[in-house]
Amino acid sequence: MRKHWWVNHKMTHAQEIAGGYMWSPKRESDGKRSQYYENMRRARPGDTVVSYAGGAIRAMGTVLDAAIDAAKPEEFGSSGLSWQDQGWLVAVAWNPIKPIRPKDFLQSVAPLLPAKYSPLQAATGDGNQKAYLSEISEELFELLASRAGATGPTFSEVAQIKGTDFREVLEDAEEQKIQSDLTLSDTERAQLAMARRGQGTFRKNLLTVESCCRLTNISNSSLLVASHIKPWRSCLTAQERLDGHNGLLLAPQVDFLFDRGLIGFDQRGDLLMSSVLTSEDFQALGLVRPARHIFNSKQLAYLAYHQQNVFQD
Amino acid sequence: MRKHWWVNHKMTHAQEIAGGYMWSPKRESDGKRSQYYENMRRARPGDTVVSYAGGAIRAMGTVLDAAIDAAKPEEFGSSGLSWQDQGWLVAVAWNPIKPIRPKDFLQSVAPLLPAKYSPLQAATGDGNQKAYLSEISEELFELLASRAGATGPTFSEVAQIKGTDFREVLEDAEEQKIQSDLTLSDTERAQLAMARRGQGTFRKNLLTVESCCRLTNISNSSLLVASHIKPWRSCLTAQERLDGHNGLLLAPQVDFLFDRGLIGFDQRGDLLMSSVLTSEDFQALGLVRPARHIFNSKQLAYLAYHQQNVFQD
Repeated sequence: MRKHWWVNHKMTHAQEIAGGYMWSPKRESDGKRSQYYENMRRARPGDTVVSYAGGAIRAMGTVLDAAIDAAKPEEFGSSGLSWQDQGWLVAVAWNPIKPIRPKDFLQSVAPLLPAKYSPLQAATGDGNQKAYLSEISEELFELLASRAGATGPTFSEVAQIKGTDFREVLEDAEEQKIQSDLTLSDTERAQLAMARRGQGTFRKNLLTVESCCRLTNISNSSLLVASHIKPWRSCLTAQERLDGHNGLLLAPQVDFLFDRGLIGFDQRGDLLMSSVLTSEDFQALGLVRPARHIFNSKQLAYLAYHQQNVFQD
Repeated sequence: MRKHWWVNHKMTHAQEIAGGYMWSPKRESDGKRSQYYENMRRARPGDTVVSYAGGAIRAMGTVLDAAIDAAKPEEFGSSGLSWQDQGWLVAVAWNPIKPIRPKDFLQSVAPLLPAKYSPLQAATGDGNQKAYLSEISEELFELLASRAGATGPTFSEVAQIKGTDFREVLEDAEEQKIQSDLTLSDTERAQLAMARRGQGTFRKNLLTVESCCRLTNISNSSLLVASHIKPWRSCLTAQERLDGHNGLLLAPQVDFLFDRGLIGFDQRGDLLMSSVLTSEDFQALGLVRPARHIFNSKQLAYLAYHQQNVFQD
């Protein structure tokens, strides 16, 4: 079921539209939960978004990928100073439109605004100060789309064509940091870069902890991918990136699902399956739900990170 | 069954040892087949190699990966002028050793040299001018290893730890060329870079030709990888890189096997399975041999390239 979203960009509108994404912190600056930020995790490929900034809707888009764990974009500069550095990034294919001002037809818009977590104040038509990403109804989306005369590519078409892979962008940036970090030796830099690909020291360390794929039981290591549990791009230290406990040896399709958060493991060792993944597709990938697994305490700590930050509920 | 190899590097010894590889052209400069070059395609991960240059064995190593299709390394400079540009690259984990000169114990070496395609002339102990990669017997290898007092990491251990991924290195180099090619527009450069990841225009073009995975029948495109048939790194033109006929939509584990040449398709549309891939592993990956497939003539041309240059017989 396709959902519709409304994003209030504020000062970082230009960066987000040009960059092809939305970004929010994970929590308010005082550490409180925010439904507007939690909504980032609810957006799914194929969902539609209207982009609001400076009193007008200026672009419409299609969500390309589920939210990924991403530090605050550097291009926000001082505009993002008050935000926490840890956040969610959602890739969006944006189409700029001729700006439309909801205030100009507030009588039509106001009754369709959601009662809770509304992007606009129904009475005045002004943006809601706290809002970032709000879910809106099909009716409101259709009203805005017809006003905008939005044509562009059909949404289902766009959603199949992956744009920028932000995982890759984030990892490239992280790798550049490593390569220019003079406190690291050449060997350490090489180890960390190889760990990104599941190679070298990380793979060697992982082989001392894991010996076969947790879902397919394949033990031929030339068919197995050394997959980080806490993603390489999200690790804070070299130690985490090379830690053999921060990995699983997975068959390629299992690595694919785990990396995208379509599967995970809970703290009892049971497989978690995302609502996004159908059991038909899971079976067609040649997989069956495994018995409860035993993980050591270090693995469980990394798996908790994965469940909270990568797994798509 | 682990095989043993002897490589006569000649002028490019230093580059190959430092770079962690062996490289040969595919054919003699006059276009003739050479068994020494064909042997590159027969080397398998875990095989051992002795490296001979300047009259001595100066390194021993373990093959890390099957041969990949690779242009002549730039670092060969003028040393490689007489060689064809198209060749095979085999990744090797080299361990330098204290040089040992086979001439010094030729009475022991000569009887163990292969009758055909020998690396040395049995009578004189001089290198064979035409030789590059020769298969040698277990006995000869053991003789040389004991002379060298080779210890180093155990070979099976090394073979599990992938070193440099030369596919990645070759693709990075290719991408740099594209990014600095001023005859291309910004859009073309972006399209070609995205095609490397199976994204953007290439994926869009592919979706007009293929609709589901040829082995698993999965049609949910968010689970499918847009895989080039003729590898992105081996394409000669932008047109080939973006051609929807030069691709298959494959489930992640099928993409993994196809990309490494562990499966392929022959010109009748039947699945080819490499001798390297056991049927147990194929099944454990959730795969069954599909019925004969129909491919169009453009796909068949690319599949022929794959069979000859990527597939591991």
